[in-house]
Amino acid sequence: MSHAEDALSVHKRLRGKITTALKDVVDSPEKLSTYYTPGVGDVSRHLAEHPEETRDYTNTHNNVAIVSDGSAVLGLGNVGPEAALPVMEGKSMLFKSFADVDGIPIVLSTQDVDQIVTTVTAIAPSFGGINLEDIKAPECFEIEAQLKEALDIPVFHDDQHGTAVVVLAGLINACSLTGRELNSSRVAIAGVGAAGVAIIKLLKVYAPEAAIVAVDSQDIVSGTRDDLNPTKQMLVDDGLVIADIDGDIAAALKGSDVFIGVAKPELVDRDMVRSMNDDPIVFAMSNPVPEIMPDDAREAGAAVVATGRSDFPNQINNALVFPGIFRGALDNQVIDITDAHKIATAEVVAGLVDKVSADMIIPSIFDERLVPAIAARITPPKE
Amino acid sequence: MSHAEDALSVHKRLRGKITTALKDVVDSPEKLSTYYTPGVGDVSRHLAEHPEETRDYTNTHNNVAIVSDGSAVLGLGNVGPEAALPVMEGKSMLFKSFADVDGIPIVLSTQDVDQIVTTVTAIAPSFGGINLEDIKAPECFEIEAQLKEALDIPVFHDDQHGTAVVVLAGLINACSLTGRELNSSRVAIAGVGAAGVAIIKLLKVYAPEAAIVAVDSQDIVSGTRDDLNPTKQMLVDDGLVIADIDGDIAAALKGSDVFIGVAKPELVDRDMVRSMNDDPIVFAMSNPVPEIMPDDAREAGAAVVATGRSDFPNQINNALVFPGIFRGALDNQVIDITDAHKIATAEVVAGLVDKVSADMIIPSIFDERLVPAIAARITPPKE
Repeated sequence: MSHAEDALSVHKRLRGKITTALKDVVDSPEKLSTYYTPGVGDVSRHLAEHPEETRDYTNTHNNVAIVSDGSAVLGLGNVGPEAALPVMEGKSMLFKSFADVDGIPIVLSTQDVDQIVTTVTAIAPSFGGINLEDIKAPECFEIEAQLKEALDIPVFHDDQHGTAVVVLAGLINACSLTGRELNSSRVAIAGVGAAGVAIIKLLKVYAPEAAIVAVDSQDIVSGTRDDLNPTKQMLVDDGLVIADIDGDIAAALKGSDVFIGVAKPELVDRDMVRSMNDDPIVFAMSNPVPEIMPDDAREAGAAVVATGRSDFPNQINNALVFPGIFRGALDNQVIDITDAHKIATAEVVAGLVDKVSADMIIPSIFDERLVPAIAARITPPKE
Repeated sequence: MSHAEDALSVHKRLRGKITTALKDVVDSPEKLSTYYTPGVGDVSRHLAEHPEETRDYTNTHNNVAIVSDGSAVLGLGNVGPEAALPVMEGKSMLFKSFADVDGIPIVLSTQDVDQIVTTVTAIAPSFGGINLEDIKAPECFEIEAQLKEALDIPVFHDDQHGTAVVVLAGLINACSLTGRELNSSRVAIAGVGAAGVAIIKLLKVYAPEAAIVAVDSQDIVSGTRDDLNPTKQMLVDDGLVIADIDGDIAAALKGSDVFIGVAKPELVDRDMVRSMNDDPIVFAMSNPVPEIMPDDAREAGAAVVATGRSDFPNQINNALVFPGIFRGALDNQVIDITDAHKIATAEVVAGLVDKVSADMIIPSIFDERLVPAIAARITPPKE
């Protein structure tokens, strides 16, 4: 059976991967009267006076909406809400498996920024947090910003920040392994969508002196270009990227210490890796086909190689961090997941690798220390 | 421990009554690759081409959003979304317990008709059905009508139609017990909100010759009134109610065969029941305190008395029907739940009482025959 047949047939047999479950059985008139009318009326009456106690009487202390408009699903692009739904159900499985968080898939029939913000704001009282997922750039930036402003529960776009945190965790160990300081390194990033922008922003908070060159589907994001969208222009204007060089992906890699790919298959060849500084670090995370295959990258001299795939060493996978981040945010009532939280998470993830080596810069996603260690770092800001 | 303390403390201990559960454990890289990336990409790719098969690969074949704006919660009124949430979670419990339907509570931070319609339309691809709940009249009528028009999944406002179906089921047996034809009976209905209007409409479909007198919080809904909202005016204009008499609740009950109360506590006294025709039928469903207590109604001559309470005989409870109706709609892919479905459901529920008596006109909510018997009647229209 081919891989494709297998995943499809398993999904068709299960018809969905998650379901609801009851915290108690309803098998008597007494329980019916307690959990439904008239008993539940006492709870409603109490919450009408004390809405701030809702999380103590309902599941909002433990649930998260997994919201997607289907506009940027995996590597498939804008495939719509129906095609996004199995991914959101998969995410719900990971939330439950790894962190006992109840993730509720919500896929949307609209891709309009204002309508998405209005809709998520409208349903927000049902949830303890909002995980935005597979929403394309640049719309995702505006949606996240507006929702963070509007809501008093955590809002986290995992494609941006989950990815950025795991990349930083991997880089911390890869830099130590190759005797580098990120702060004095040159980093070439291919792909300036949701993940790329978030990676650039987080790296510049963690290592403000790092020199970052960004490459989009055209060329290096530079000050001479007049075709930049507002987000890319912001990267230039705010000095987050080196904007005074022009050129293509090959020009970006030349003389770099680190390559981070969140772009497309086979973008990078061996000669480009050879043009990097000694012992370069290559994170080729396009999925399922990386920007350069690990064997090729190593043959060309890469000291550390990571991908997004589970069948190579060093899998950079958001699932390492989002369960723990939401577990912590829910338990500790953290509303704003800040850069400080993200950096603390990256450091704790990097620290969980018992013996760092070229093939082991990131812990296993099944490492049971991950979620509690991360959750403990997601705490409210000190007064 | 008082009843109030008990329900509150149970809810506080459980902190929510429902949770998510996995259809399979995710305990290996292989399963991770099947249920999440990259395997799930095959499912997404398939559904991008065949969105009509979504229910075969996701949980939309079995889930229902339980949507409320918190504007008419139980007998408490407009208490808002937080206070509505424990009721929606209770409903989710009943959906799961009785019909294995996954009910997802969605409470809204808006009470604007257009925003509710837009929001529910936006999230609809996540679900196999929409159960509207505890939304006040007359907004609920417009919301339901617009959503039925917009969506290709079943939309059902349980406070209207669930109540109407159970009332009709009870009336079928109560009429047979008292030797009446509903079609030649006079029915006084107190309360012209969501439930009252739906009861009137369904009774007039089932028994077009029944004479119905409706009483709102002011008086009889009559043609001489100039303060009627559009819904009540429609009842008059369409001839659904007897509109050529004026007066109060006492005038409405005088000479009636049936009283149906969906209004407020202690509205009816013994003298009013005595003024009804012989062997009258009294359904006093205000909750938790009925329009007249059963003992008083019987003392005044009522032949059959029903309430909404579980501690008296003949509990008129929506939970008798909504689980089976949605089970059938989901399994049989019924998009439009019609009056024919509602009447078929009422008849099947009435028929499940093995030996009809004054204290047994309705089956127990725990009768395991209910859901399959109802579901079998919720079928697509014959071509």
